[in-house]
Amino acid sequence: MTLKAIAVAALSELENGQEADVFVLMTLKEELKTRDGKPYHKVGFRDARREVQFPVWSDAPTAEECRRSWTPGTFYKVRAVYRETNYGPQLDIRKIREAIAADAADGFDPDAFRPRSKFDAAVMFDELCGIVRERVADERVRELTLKLLTDHRTELLTLPAATKNHHGFSGGFLEHVLSVVKSAVFFADKYADYYPDLAPPLDKDLVVAGAVLHDIGKLRELEWRPEGPAYTDSGSLIGHVLQGRDMVRETAAGLAAEGRPLDDEKLLRLEHIVVSHQRLPEWGAPKPPMTPEALLVHYADDLDAKYHMLYCILRDDPTPGALTSKKNVLTQQFYRGKG
Amino acid sequence: MTLKAIAVAALSELENGQEADVFVLMTLKEELKTRDGKPYHKVGFRDARREVQFPVWSDAPTAEECRRSWTPGTFYKVRAVYRETNYGPQLDIRKIREAIAADAADGFDPDAFRPRSKFDAAVMFDELCGIVRERVADERVRELTLKLLTDHRTELLTLPAATKNHHGFSGGFLEHVLSVVKSAVFFADKYADYYPDLAPPLDKDLVVAGAVLHDIGKLRELEWRPEGPAYTDSGSLIGHVLQGRDMVRETAAGLAAEGRPLDDEKLLRLEHIVVSHQRLPEWGAPKPPMTPEALLVHYADDLDAKYHMLYCILRDDPTPGALTSKKNVLTQQFYRGKG
Amino acid sequence: MTLKAIAVAALSELENGQEADVFVLMTLKEELKTRDGKPYHKVGFRDARREVQFPVWSDAPTAEECRRSWTPGTFYKVRAVYRETNYGPQLDIRKIREAIAADAADGFDPDAFRPRSKFDAAVMFDELCGIVRERVADERVRELTLKLLTDHRTELLTLPAATKNHHGFSGGFLEHVLSVVKSAVFFADKYADYYPDLAPPLDKDLVVAGAVLHDIGKLRELEWRPEGPAYTDSGSLIGHVLQGRDMVRETAAGLAAEGRPLDDEKLLRLEHIVVSHQRLPEWGAPKPPMTPEALLVHYADDLDAKYHMLYCILRDDPTPGALTSKKNVLTQQFYRGKG
Amino acid sequence: MTLKAIAVAALSELENGQEADVFVLMTLKEELKTRDGKPYHKVGFRDARREVQFPVWSDAPTAEECRRSWTPGTFYKVRAVYRETNYGPQLDIRKIREAIAADAADGFDPDAFRPRSKFDAAVMFDELCGIVRERVADERVRELTLKLLTDHRTELLTLPAATKNHHGFSGGFLEHVLSVVKSAVFFADKYADYYPDLAPPLDKDLVVAGAVLHDIGKLRELEWRPEGPAYTDSGSLIGHVLQGRDMVRETAAGLAAEGRPLDDEKLLRLEHIVVSHQRLPEWGAPKPPMTPEALLVHYADDLDAKYHMLYCILRDDPTPGALTSKKNVLTQQFYRGKG
Amino acid sequence: MTLKAIAVAALSELENGQEADVFVLMTLKEELKTRDGKPYHKVGFRDARREVQFPVWSDAPTAEECRRSWTPGTFYKVRAVYRETNYGPQLDIRKIREAIAADAADGFDPDAFRPRSKFDAAVMFDELCGIVRERVADERVRELTLKLLTDHRTELLTLPAATKNHHGFSGGFLEHVLSVVKSAVFFADKYADYYPDLAPPLDKDLVVAGAVLHDIGKLRELEWRPEGPAYTDSGSLIGHVLQGRDMVRETAAGLAAEGRPLDDEKLLRLEHIVVSHQRLPEWGAPKPPMTPEALLVHYADDLDAKYHMLYCILRDDPTPGALTSKKNVLTQQFYRGKG
Amino acid sequence: MTLKAIAVAALSELENGQEADVFVLMTLKEELKTRDGKPYHKVGFRDARREVQFPVWSDAPTAEECRRSWTPGTFYKVRAVYRETNYGPQLDIRKIREAIAADAADGFDPDAFRPRSKFDAAVMFDELCGIVRERVADERVRELTLKLLTDHRTELLTLPAATKNHHGFSGGFLEHVLSVVKSAVFFADKYADYYPDLAPPLDKDLVVAGAVLHDIGKLRELEWRPEGPAYTDSGSLIGHVLQGRDMVRETAAGLAAEGRPLDDEKLLRLEHIVVSHQRLPEWGAPKPPMTPEALLVHYADDLDAKYHMLYCILRDDPTPGALTSKKNVLTQQFYRGKG
Repeated sequence: MTLKAIAVAALSELENGQEADVFVLMTLKEELKTRDGKPYHKVGFRDARREVQFPVWSDAPTAEECRRSWTPGTFYKVRAVYRETNYGPQLDIRKIREAIAADAADGFDPDAFRPRSKFDAAVMFDELCGIVRERVADERVRELTLKLLTDHRTELLTLPAATKNHHGFSGGFLEHVLSVVKSAVFFADKYADYYPDLAPPLDKDLVVAGAVLHDIGKLRELEWRPEGPAYTDSGSLIGHVLQGRDMVRETAAGLAAEGRPLDDEKLLRLEHIVVSHQRLPEWGAPKPPMTPEALLVHYADDLDAKYHMLYCILRDDPTPGALTSKKNVLTQQFYRGKG
Repeated sequence: MTLKAIAVAALSELENGQEADVFVLMTLKEELKTRDGKPYHKVGFRDARREVQFPVWSDAPTAEECRRSWTPGTFYKVRAVYRETNYGPQLDIRKIREAIAADAADGFDPDAFRPRSKFDAAVMFDELCGIVRERVADERVRELTLKLLTDHRTELLTLPAATKNHHGFSGGFLEHVLSVVKSAVFFADKYADYYPDLAPPLDKDLVVAGAVLHDIGKLRELEWRPEGPAYTDSGSLIGHVLQGRDMVRETAAGLAAEGRPLDDEKLLRLEHIVVSHQRLPEWGAPKPPMTPEALLVHYADDLDAKYHMLYCILRDDPTPGALTSKKNVLTQQFYRGKG
Repeated sequence: MTLKAIAVAALSELENGQEADVFVLMTLKEELKTRDGKPYHKVGFRDARREVQFPVWSDAPTAEECRRSWTPGTFYKVRAVYRETNYGPQLDIRKIREAIAADAADGFDPDAFRPRSKFDAAVMFDELCGIVRERVADERVRELTLKLLTDHRTELLTLPAATKNHHGFSGGFLEHVLSVVKSAVFFADKYADYYPDLAPPLDKDLVVAGAVLHDIGKLRELEWRPEGPAYTDSGSLIGHVLQGRDMVRETAAGLAAEGRPLDDEKLLRLEHIVVSHQRLPEWGAPKPPMTPEALLVHYADDLDAKYHMLYCILRDDPTPGALTSKKNVLTQQFYRGKG
Repeated sequence: MTLKAIAVAALSELENGQEADVFVLMTLKEELKTRDGKPYHKVGFRDARREVQFPVWSDAPTAEECRRSWTPGTFYKVRAVYRETNYGPQLDIRKIREAIAADAADGFDPDAFRPRSKFDAAVMFDELCGIVRERVADERVRELTLKLLTDHRTELLTLPAATKNHHGFSGGFLEHVLSVVKSAVFFADKYADYYPDLAPPLDKDLVVAGAVLHDIGKLRELEWRPEGPAYTDSGSLIGHVLQGRDMVRETAAGLAAEGRPLDDEKLLRLEHIVVSHQRLPEWGAPKPPMTPEALLVHYADDLDAKYHMLYCILRDDPTPGALTSKKNVLTQQFYRGKG
Repeated sequence: MTLKAIAVAALSELENGQEADVFVLMTLKEELKTRDGKPYHKVGFRDARREVQFPVWSDAPTAEECRRSWTPGTFYKVRAVYRETNYGPQLDIRKIREAIAADAADGFDPDAFRPRSKFDAAVMFDELCGIVRERVADERVRELTLKLLTDHRTELLTLPAATKNHHGFSGGFLEHVLSVVKSAVFFADKYADYYPDLAPPLDKDLVVAGAVLHDIGKLRELEWRPEGPAYTDSGSLIGHVLQGRDMVRETAAGLAAEGRPLDDEKLLRLEHIVVSHQRLPEWGAPKPPMTPEALLVHYADDLDAKYHMLYCILRDDPTPGALTSKKNVLTQQFYRGKG
Repeated sequence: MTLKAIAVAALSELENGQEADVFVLMTLKEELKTRDGKPYHKVGFRDARREVQFPVWSDAPTAEECRRSWTPGTFYKVRAVYRETNYGPQLDIRKIREAIAADAADGFDPDAFRPRSKFDAAVMFDELCGIVRERVADERVRELTLKLLTDHRTELLTLPAATKNHHGFSGGFLEHVLSVVKSAVFFADKYADYYPDLAPPLDKDLVVAGAVLHDIGKLRELEWRPEGPAYTDSGSLIGHVLQGRDMVRETAAGLAAEGRPLDDEKLLRLEHIVVSHQRLPEWGAPKPPMTPEALLVHYADDLDAKYHMLYCILRDDPTPGALTSKKNVLTQQFYRGKG
């Protein structure tokens, strides 16, 4: 069976009555009964901007296939007529099969089903690398930091920063990290100037490298599933704080094996930044920041995450009036005011 | 009795055997007994850089006056010969009287006995006013902010930022606040750019004005005593958070009475920044930051205070080796390393 | 359109089939669909003791007006027939318009829609003033306290003590404060007798005045909305603890401007009582009670609030058996027993 | 050896040079060395109002006996000459032996060495019993309460309320309990009036009986040792909260055995008052107050203990100025003010 | 009316269409209305392994009796035809009456309706007594421990260990306590060997007896109700920790009265084990473990309860994938893995 | 200069007047002044069982060398006469030089200066390996566990388990770990039997291997310094929990490189045991125990550490009477009793 004969379109762009091939993600399959006891399924499909939910009656041509094999969380290529009814938008499904890798040729891209950063991920990636090249003077620290970025460029472009608390969208990691790095650069310059007699002097290289790498363990902690960002098994049992330090150590070991070792003390301080960046044990930091570099990275990170949460709360909270409810990730009310 | 005949010098600059008039702060008066039961006093005097402690025996010419009237915490003008002995430096006191206001003519200045910021207070004050003029666009908010600074210029030049936890020296308030304001300006610009769709938009004026005024209540909470910065009664019972908001409100009321009222909503948001800048109830914030402006001021303030504490700990902790002790204001160890 | 022709009655007193004009508060408007997809509204109205909810079908004469303009939280004058049906009590609405100020002539009073204290507010107010007159010996403290009461008599008569945690009804402020004051008088007399050598002696005037004024900031923190007591913007961002102290200070400044200033020390101690009356930072006290007067007011207040909560829990908890559930404002079980 | 020949006096009333027999408590015995290496003892003795400390040189007549058998914490009858020297007051000991029970005939009373309530213990005891007789209407509850008091009258007269935190002196238990009971009576009357519809109604008998008995377990938890009030073994391992309930239950069982049982429900509620009177688990309450009676007793108790602590802090804190230090049992500063 | 004519069967073993007498527990009675407004009842009945829910229409022969007297939580003897319908399994009730004590002759046993331990309660009871006989060397401690077991054998066989947190089923007390005792025996042997010089030596008798008796107060704290294990009034107001100690003391007093007293010190230490076995005040321990014996019993108990909770979570959590949700009694996620 | 001419003895075995060569650790060097102002040094030396402290006067032959180069924390070979004086034991030093590696030939062993386990370290090591061989069925898990032990045999023999909180002596690691492993074996057997239907089944191999390896990171966290066990830099900044997991991962990677990889799931679960063994974030666990294996290892570890602390407190607390003070690592009182 091939679906190729007619144009591939986006579900969210179909018009009433239009027939087309669309790539969709199944989001719902629920077995229900009619008043007179006949079983049917309520199903749902979506792309990034539109979701449809409708019944598949027991006498529909797709009923048996629906019952037997359709699975929420799976991508499908569907040929269907799109109808807007009194009961909301529906699909009259003609043909359906699971999406496959080869569908990429027709524009199928799982990432397209995800919410994404408003900034271009590739541009952010390049800006991040540029800052490292410019602001990390120590050759080995620079090399290690760049290697960790470039070795994982593809995954980093779509990695979220968290599952839901903040920046939980494609490109969220880069958006968050780039912002943290910019604050870190500002802090490093500022406080190196304020306290030139700090002993040992503030290692600005490490502030920048630490800001870039503080969350790198998210690469192992998180993964995209069709239904959104989720924790890997090792992410749940070990966590990105430890896994990020693993990646730093493994990369450093690799460089050392090639005869380009990092200075021991710098490596230890860099690991410590990763380990301590969440500051409090109950926030997941095995050690609190014990160096000036770690303290600066913590504050740059913490503010950026909190400000993003605040932004989302003000944007999304449905409570009318000047104040939001306190049912949000920060568990307090915020003030919108009369603005 | 006048002491004017010979030159006024600084205690810390006297040489062995030199006789001079010096202004000193009495730091110690302790009644002791010799082995054979005769009472004597151990006394101490200092200026900003040298302290001397020595006995006043019961048969010394000054013994009776010492016993009767000398009081620790008092400034004295003393004519004395300075001697370096096996028991340490001593003063052979010839004449002594309390310092008086008129001694200013001879260079007496209580502020000279205090530790002070390494930055020039007048320069910092001007820089702070300059930032307000440049970065606070709203005329009334700018006026209020500047008025609070200029009306208290004299006290602000010597005000510390705290009694001991951070910036506990003359000019410490300005050093801390100027640094907080610079971070606040950076944050305001950065996050206004990141989230142009924040609703209502970030009020950058208030971020700057709030950063300038967040600690203004220290003017009422703290006072210099000869022995160092101390809490006033109202500071202990009410606290600078509430007292700072009082000053903002009183000044706003004064401007309103002159026909130049602040916008109600802006004033409320500004008061809230002052009220919430310490974030947690147990840190003294009656309300947590509930606006984007308040959140930014809190982070700028918190980081600056913590970094200064860290700097002092690394500078002052006497523990040998790579790690400090945990006996410090942050109650944790810090790492100096091999640097 | 005028509704005046027939008698104005109370919704809660209508009998089945009776037609009347009633003043009601709209509490609900929900857009639903019938089984066959036709939209209709479910609406609700209430007075202080009866609530009715019923459908407005799409072909009802009021359907269009309902859809377009009826708004929950609005008071209406309604001419309707009251019917008790199988689906509960309903109104057959003939005419409807928003209630207006002039309706006061027909007995319209928003306060009548609120739950209210079982005690007469005016009597409580007078009793409170009487205690102040009798028990506050210092002329200026007495004057300030009475002025704050009498200047706000009208609002105080209907002010609740909180939005929901305790005494959240019209007159609740007076009921709570009067009870607190009585305990405070008892404590002041008792402990002044027990510890006559306390230095400085217990200032019984301040215990009484502080008890009267501890919650006065509720006047600025809370407001009545049709749906019940709610926080004002400034109440949310600043809070009644600070706002109450503002009122004390403003009144004291006014008296001082008229040449009748309070003693500074007494004013400071009075402000401190207001500031500290909730005792713990996490309960909203910027400072803990630091004087004997503040400690007594705190206990009188805390017990009265907690006992009222306990009373409400025992009255309202629906759990059968000897024990209540722990789903209440004090988050613990209470024991009713076999009583 | 008999010391009877000369008058028995109080140490604190001896005059310089006077010889007398005194009863004293040994408070100190320390082995020291002179500069040239000879061992001697520094010893101390006191009565309730004067303490003397002095050396017993190795060649003194009492040196050997001192070394061998004198024991701090022991009461002695001493014949000595009292001398005020440059090194402070001393005793020139002529004869010394341990105090014995028979010394009571000469006025020896260990209780006299203890700090004691300023109120007469016997009067307080009678007042307490009077309140029980008058205010506890239920015959069985009254009987149980009175029996617990009268069966332990002797110990109760000298029992402290705690080892050090509050009322840690002879008669302290009665002073504290009587005060708690008076507040409890006030609360019971007041809140029974306020909430006549409480269901089940407030049991005022239990409020009074519970207030009387809440700390009765101190009889088993505490004991007087020569050096002051101390915990018994069972007090440390079990605690007065549980031990007080034991006493209530044992007494109730005794009455039941005599055919005068308490109502089961009343007994359970009374036990619960004892169990919960410290309210929080971390303060030692296995259960929080779950009845109105228990809540009232808790507040009466808590305020009385805290107010006494505050009184002692204001009386004893040595810090000069308007504020105390925070080194006290309540770990916060208090304000004395300019009073 | 007698139901005896036909065989008594188990509800859970009935087949479609079978008529039988069954003992059932009523679990639900809800008054509802049909679409056309006619009232009917939805009722539910169950035995240990099957539950049926069905309507009793207003014209059914049992309708009036259902409305008037059937009560959820009551056991009934029912004669009915069992039918499996499209709407689930139903009972067509012919006769019904409350179960009575005499029904025991026909096999009626309330305990049969409860979830129960997979281990035979009588066997566990005997094993527990056997361990006491073998491992408690002190005659009096052994006697007290055995007496407490054997005096309550009947209730102990069905007692749960808690209402829901762990081992909340018939026999759960024995299952939990036997497991705790086995760990305690292991700990006692092991640590007595490791630290033979502990002073005073570890009292292994008390470790075993304390493990056996640590939860004995559950006999007074909990009771079986038809709907499951529940707290008694005294359990809620006093709690099993105190009630268990009561039972130990009462039994010891009884033995003492018979001339077989326990050693005071042993009894005190045994009481302390019961009092402290939950270790933290917020977990219900008035005192923390202060003896080696108490520490060992705490750990044996705590691990056994936690491991059982973990077992139930892994068994019951419905979340798909490698991780459970955190909605469980331990409020954290657990890992099932790929196993 | 050679000291070889006379016998090498142990400081703690010297008799009054004996001259000998001894290896000692310098513990103290303090510069003091005599009454008449002459500087001298007070110095201290010890071996494992005796410490001597005495003055080195400014005219002593060793005075200059003492002042210039002797350093506390250094091992010395000293030729001296041992004297017991009125001022305590002293050394009359004739010759002194730093100890060197070659002194091992004369029996010099830094480990001999440390407190040590009462158990033979080599025997414990062998027993530990024996348990692994016998109780870890999975070949690869067994291999990894044994490799980590045998690769570090030498250091493990003297490694302490902590710096001071528990088992802070040579061999302490082995004493603690062996005890934990024995409890873990008991738990694994017991709970595998109790819950045979646990899914996935309890992995007893991992319980044993996890117990053996839970603290293995102490090898990198701790080091012996002359003054006792101390934290390494990486121990302070990273900590043994993470470092132990590093060692497990590095060893697993090494085995994998040799073609003998562990099962991924087993490795992840093993890492998780190490990561979570301290359970609470504030105790240093980045993740809580999320598997049955991890829970068992945590309890075995926690009890063993706590019991050892309790043992030391009962042994060392100097408070007289039945109760210890609360000044100990567990910050609570313990009961010794009358035993």
